[in-house]
Amino acid sequence: MNSTGFLPADKLLFTPGPLTTSATVKDAMLHDAGSWHFEFNDRVQWIRRQLLTIAEVSPADGWEAVLLQGSGTNGVEAVFATCVPPQGKVCVLVNGAYGERMVRMLEHLKIEHVALRAAEDAWPDIAALEQWLHQNPTITHVAAVHCETTTGILNPIPEIGRVVRRHACAFIVDAMSSFGALPLDLEESGVDFLISSANKCLEGVPGFCFVIARRDQLLANEKHARCLSLNLADQLRGFEKNGQFRYTPPTHALLAFERALKEFFDEGGIAGRNARYRANHTALVEGMMRLGFQPYLPADLQSCIITAFHCPADTRFAFPEFYRQLSDLGFIIYPGKLTRAETFRIANIGHLFLSDILALLNAIALVKKNMNFDTQISRAVPTDFVAVPHL
Amino acid sequence: MNSTGFLPADKLLFTPGPLTTSATVKDAMLHDAGSWHFEFNDRVQWIRRQLLTIAEVSPADGWEAVLLQGSGTNGVEAVFATCVPPQGKVCVLVNGAYGERMVRMLEHLKIEHVALRAAEDAWPDIAALEQWLHQNPTITHVAAVHCETTTGILNPIPEIGRVVRRHACAFIVDAMSSFGALPLDLEESGVDFLISSANKCLEGVPGFCFVIARRDQLLANEKHARCLSLNLADQLRGFEKNGQFRYTPPTHALLAFERALKEFFDEGGIAGRNARYRANHTALVEGMMRLGFQPYLPADLQSCIITAFHCPADTRFAFPEFYRQLSDLGFIIYPGKLTRAETFRIANIGHLFLSDILALLNAIALVKKNMNFDTQISRAVPTDFVAVPHL
Repeated sequence: MNSTGFLPADKLLFTPGPLTTSATVKDAMLHDAGSWHFEFNDRVQWIRRQLLTIAEVSPADGWEAVLLQGSGTNGVEAVFATCVPPQGKVCVLVNGAYGERMVRMLEHLKIEHVALRAAEDAWPDIAALEQWLHQNPTITHVAAVHCETTTGILNPIPEIGRVVRRHACAFIVDAMSSFGALPLDLEESGVDFLISSANKCLEGVPGFCFVIARRDQLLANEKHARCLSLNLADQLRGFEKNGQFRYTPPTHALLAFERALKEFFDEGGIAGRNARYRANHTALVEGMMRLGFQPYLPADLQSCIITAFHCPADTRFAFPEFYRQLSDLGFIIYPGKLTRAETFRIANIGHLFLSDILALLNAIALVKKNMNFDTQISRAVPTDFVAVPHL
Repeated sequence: MNSTGFLPADKLLFTPGPLTTSATVKDAMLHDAGSWHFEFNDRVQWIRRQLLTIAEVSPADGWEAVLLQGSGTNGVEAVFATCVPPQGKVCVLVNGAYGERMVRMLEHLKIEHVALRAAEDAWPDIAALEQWLHQNPTITHVAAVHCETTTGILNPIPEIGRVVRRHACAFIVDAMSSFGALPLDLEESGVDFLISSANKCLEGVPGFCFVIARRDQLLANEKHARCLSLNLADQLRGFEKNGQFRYTPPTHALLAFERALKEFFDEGGIAGRNARYRANHTALVEGMMRLGFQPYLPADLQSCIITAFHCPADTRFAFPEFYRQLSDLGFIIYPGKLTRAETFRIANIGHLFLSDILALLNAIALVKKNMNFDTQISRAVPTDFVAVPHL
């Protein structure tokens, strides 16, 4: 409560999720629902159907949407734990922290795997993948990240998928921070498993993730699932048996998600949401460049979801202080996660609009002035930047 | 919205969780918090400390509280996946569905195990456990359920713990539906791991669970954890490194839980909550017996959390119709889960008071009259029942 007696507004989250949600999405959580109750289960089934609609796939073509408790990481690991056979081998395309996390999952699950690593500011080497799959016919699954939140790079899933399909491997795509905002043709891209989360571009609150998968692939290894909580096949069987989650679901997060999906459709689905995020992103990058900040990625690799900026080389800049001052002004940004460059990140997803981006830019200008750092030292603004050239 | 233009109140949940929560707990979810943000992390650390306080253990004595995303089942499986060494062997005491679920986890994780099964209306056979552990010195862990939600039976954890300790095994206790309402001396009971969940007797909303554990036991097998999402040791390291969850936490559920803990302490902690639940339970069972319903368990085995009642033998009784009519009146009860008897269950935990119990009893009387079934056919009311004799 501030001195006027009013609750201050929440700080705006310029982070890749949890993110700022609409007041109406949060209001939907003001109800307690029974997780065994038929009225609640009808709502869960509605959510599952809508996810397939958004993905533009159909149960008639063998697609399923399975919701799973926990963070998106649970969903990615659930696919590995449930769907890779005992003798399976996974090839992971890595160009950031989320690809590395997949490798750690496979180590934990003791699943044979190889990692094909690219630089954090480069696409996976598709020719190398082709060669690898050709030389290693024992590889059964290829896993990749759609939008690597580490940098905001958008990986070429359709191009990778064509190679994966040619070698008859199954294709697992972590679409955590892209689903709902960036179109992806699952059939054409040869995707078998797509994983995303409630609290990303569909603008729900955190609490569960979901997997959109081909039913035959999802159930193929059912008997060999490595973990009960993460057993996606058993989870699907549960929904089919009685419409319920096997174990207690985050009921309030599901009610929020139901509302979030309605608002998503009201905004015009992927096209509408993509247009708002692109406008946010363009304004953000243009404004930041005017302030002298330099994006980490070349524009042709950059998604419209999250952007990494180089930390200014000036020693008067220190990220913790920059972060704290922005927080005091009501804006939460995100630290960097790169191994080879000092960066910070700003996401522009969630219930954020151009006015919010402009307010953030004003705050950054103010903090820059307060801290008296120079963004021009030793690093020039790239002249080749054009905002959001694709999608 | 009903015809008067007002939103109808939520139906009351007489279920073992998710449960009816206070309006103020739900209101706490009307805020979006950044999961990386220091202000939020301070609140998470406060929650972790309070859980140790409630358990009456201290970090100085080597205890830790680790929060984990997902349902309580994730927490139980996380203990197995993280803390049982590769050559470990677990003995599970089973007298209900939650013990059986532990067995399924161990099968999935390919951990060697044995199950000592007792009838659903009987305590585990402690003499048999003693003999088993004596004859099987390779057993490293014993796992049991405190309050088996299947029946509501309260298992004798201190007595089991003494045997477990004598054989130098680690002791894992699923205290999902008891923690916060039933006292349990962890040190005296020789418990090494206790697992519970946000949406049980602490009256938060679902979204995460927690493990209270001895640090040395939690970290002993760190290098051999079988699952990354469920790696409790890594989760603890994450909290210690920067105060954060490793992966996106259910921020709104955590804000609700912070509020729920404050209300728990305001009610007088375990003693206060226990008193309310006992009063609820006594009124429920007395009222149900007046209506001719018969509790499944003898009173000396019954917890004050959830009660299983025999389905009336009269063929005019059908649970689905009974359930539906109660739902229409605004009361959600719970189906049975027993393998050997037709039962239904009524829990009396959550933000429920005597007036709610009395309202439920009135509704049950009305539905009984509507359905015109007889509760006296073929089964007499036990004369030895005394309400809530222990705890």
